[in-house]
Amino acid sequence: MNKIYNPKREDWKSILKRPTKSVADIESTVNTVFDELQKDGDATIKKYTEKFDGVSVADLLVTDDEIVEANSLVAIELKEAILLAKENIDKFHAAQKTESIEVETSPGVHCWQVKRPIEKVGLYIPGGTAPLFSTILMLAVPANIAGCSEIIMCTPPNKEGKIHPAILYTANLCGVTKIFKVGGIQAIAAMTFGTESIPQVYKIFGPGNQYVTVAKQIATKYGVAIDMPAGPSELLVVADDTANAEFVASDLLSQAEHGVDSQVILVTTSKAMLESVEKEVELQIEDLPRKDIAQKAIDNSKLIYLEDDQTAQELINEYGPEHYIVCVEDEGSYLSAISNAGSVFIGNYTPESAGDYASGTNHTLPTNGYAKQYSGVNLDSFMKSMTFQKISKEGIQEIGYAIELMAEAEGLQAHKNAVTLRLNSLDDE
Amino acid sequence: MNKIYNPKREDWKSILKRPTKSVADIESTVNTVFDELQKDGDATIKKYTEKFDGVSVADLLVTDDEIVEANSLVAIELKEAILLAKENIDKFHAAQKTESIEVETSPGVHCWQVKRPIEKVGLYIPGGTAPLFSTILMLAVPANIAGCSEIIMCTPPNKEGKIHPAILYTANLCGVTKIFKVGGIQAIAAMTFGTESIPQVYKIFGPGNQYVTVAKQIATKYGVAIDMPAGPSELLVVADDTANAEFVASDLLSQAEHGVDSQVILVTTSKAMLESVEKEVELQIEDLPRKDIAQKAIDNSKLIYLEDDQTAQELINEYGPEHYIVCVEDEGSYLSAISNAGSVFIGNYTPESAGDYASGTNHTLPTNGYAKQYSGVNLDSFMKSMTFQKISKEGIQEIGYAIELMAEAEGLQAHKNAVTLRLNSLDDE
Repeated sequence: MNKIYNPKREDWKSILKRPTKSVADIESTVNTVFDELQKDGDATIKKYTEKFDGVSVADLLVTDDEIVEANSLVAIELKEAILLAKENIDKFHAAQKTESIEVETSPGVHCWQVKRPIEKVGLYIPGGTAPLFSTILMLAVPANIAGCSEIIMCTPPNKEGKIHPAILYTANLCGVTKIFKVGGIQAIAAMTFGTESIPQVYKIFGPGNQYVTVAKQIATKYGVAIDMPAGPSELLVVADDTANAEFVASDLLSQAEHGVDSQVILVTTSKAMLESVEKEVELQIEDLPRKDIAQKAIDNSKLIYLEDDQTAQELINEYGPEHYIVCVEDEGSYLSAISNAGSVFIGNYTPESAGDYASGTNHTLPTNGYAKQYSGVNLDSFMKSMTFQKISKEGIQEIGYAIELMAEAEGLQAHKNAVTLRLNSLDDE
Repeated sequence: MNKIYNPKREDWKSILKRPTKSVADIESTVNTVFDELQKDGDATIKKYTEKFDGVSVADLLVTDDEIVEANSLVAIELKEAILLAKENIDKFHAAQKTESIEVETSPGVHCWQVKRPIEKVGLYIPGGTAPLFSTILMLAVPANIAGCSEIIMCTPPNKEGKIHPAILYTANLCGVTKIFKVGGIQAIAAMTFGTESIPQVYKIFGPGNQYVTVAKQIATKYGVAIDMPAGPSELLVVADDTANAEFVASDLLSQAEHGVDSQVILVTTSKAMLESVEKEVELQIEDLPRKDIAQKAIDNSKLIYLEDDQTAQELINEYGPEHYIVCVEDEGSYLSAISNAGSVFIGNYTPESAGDYASGTNHTLPTNGYAKQYSGVNLDSFMKSMTFQKISKEGIQEIGYAIELMAEAEGLQAHKNAVTLRLNSLDDE
């Protein structure tokens, strides 16, 4: 671990730098698949599923029988855990519903704002060794609360052409309308353009490897919206002497096990805590099944000592962590100071894992400093707001002259005419 | 104008197709400017301002003296009109503030969501013959309500190196913190990377020509957020026999004068109204200063007759218009049916111009069918939501077991450990 004591402000940028990757090679692969899929639809999906996933899939759509089978394969205890998590996620996201707002801005000028669901959304769930059913909860639950009418999901099949039972169970539980056995670039392309089997969607959500990430970025060029740009997952913990070094170390490691490029940072105003956390990490890492991955992330991690709270708070805002754990005596000061973070975990009994799975908050969060400008996924991610206005005869007489003047000053005579005609008709009345 | 009677559903897609442009040439120009500016900063800005705008600008930052001078050059009547518009925009966007929400999802598990302003935003205001000061109102007013601490603006200088007084007056009125004389690709690049003069921002807002549009799209690759992807402006009017053909024609023309690629569509259940609107358009277009532009847009416009309201409503949702005027007797049916539109204008006395300038709604809206998945600019466009959670000892005992099970099932042992350590410590108490 890299220990850094009182870094100079001019060095913050380089200390907090995230690793950046070249995507030029990936882009050309993505463009090839996109071009082919636009022409050949399902045939392209099958071709690349054979090439990338090493399996030939006859039917892309998961059948009801497969879902029934999956249902019987998931342990009852896990189902109960998933149900608890679903209930909490449901409560927290349902509370995010907002009322329409209406204002009479000038006499006779009524303006209102209404949110409506995005009708067609697509969820991407990665494959690999671990079945990320928790991400289905985080995406499908708010999509349902929003009222999206079509919620499709794409996830890659394994070598036997199957999908993990926990994935199918959770997707069915959360009201996903159709599940397709397709992953990677071809899944994103299919949801972008639509194929014979897979419907086109208006917005794509979900994590993925760097191919999926670049494919989502390129999909936006074709008019599809995406949840947010992605980067490696990251955690920053701020801890003082009131923190528990054992707990802090376990949180840092839970981040580190995600991948070798995971970002793990401790900021502390206590040199003793810095030393204790380092020792605890070395101890706990030994027993982890994913030790090799975690070790590489830990090797790149940073333990930063800063003399005072204000400087620490400024550095944390400069970084803008995806996950931010606050274990300090003076919580209030850190909470009011934080401007840039995805999700904040407070106190010694609030591990990041809680928010990853079951507390109710969303775990799809802005990485890579994007907390400066992006929200994590929330109910509004599945809706768009529209404005309405209705102006009475009195209303247009109230604001018409201002519109005429402004339109004229912008050189838009027809804009002015649309008002003048109406005002003249009222003069004649 | 193209008159289409009862089109078959399978032809809707081609009838409603917007013109698409190739951006490959533009992309390479944008990439060149971005690469140079990353290396050379202000020098690149000055080089391209000379090349594209034909003027050499010594100081990019607009001075206080220039603002004082502009203030004296804007007519008092126009100032009053701008103030009225500002007041209405202010009222409507201030009403969009939302309270933090807090939920105890399980006993001892407190989750809350808070919105914070995006600290640094950049506004782009195009140059050209018409000074688009109204767009400054639409962007800077909500940025200020949101509490953005740095609101910079870039706009191209004219051949004398100056900026239109109405632009400077409005920007200063609306609390823009710094105004820079730079336009086009180089402005977007400057706000993306920052230069010696121009600060880097987290999100870029505002309209522009196709170079600016592509530059904004490419800026997202470097981590900057943008308001939304852009396309030519568009209007769809639905009218029955209760509409006023003269007014409808004036609205279609106010859209048509924007540019030769503007999209203008009338949908009607009345053949008589269709004929009347066509005649009125031919009449009114004669007197427009921008007749040549409007005529080209009108040549491509469509007057679509449909026999019944429900089919009309489905076609309109399929199109997803940026601006949507509803002039029919049964308003309620059309309003409850609309899922995809940027901003909706209701009744005979609500011209699009009202929303463009002074009613209070925002005029920065999703074009190109993006109303299916994007909101128009609103207060939330300048904020991001963050989640917080604090779990008590009781709380982690309540949900800890579910987290352990789910983490284990996803193969993430360190995530489980972070909970197990805490649960064990409580068992020991």
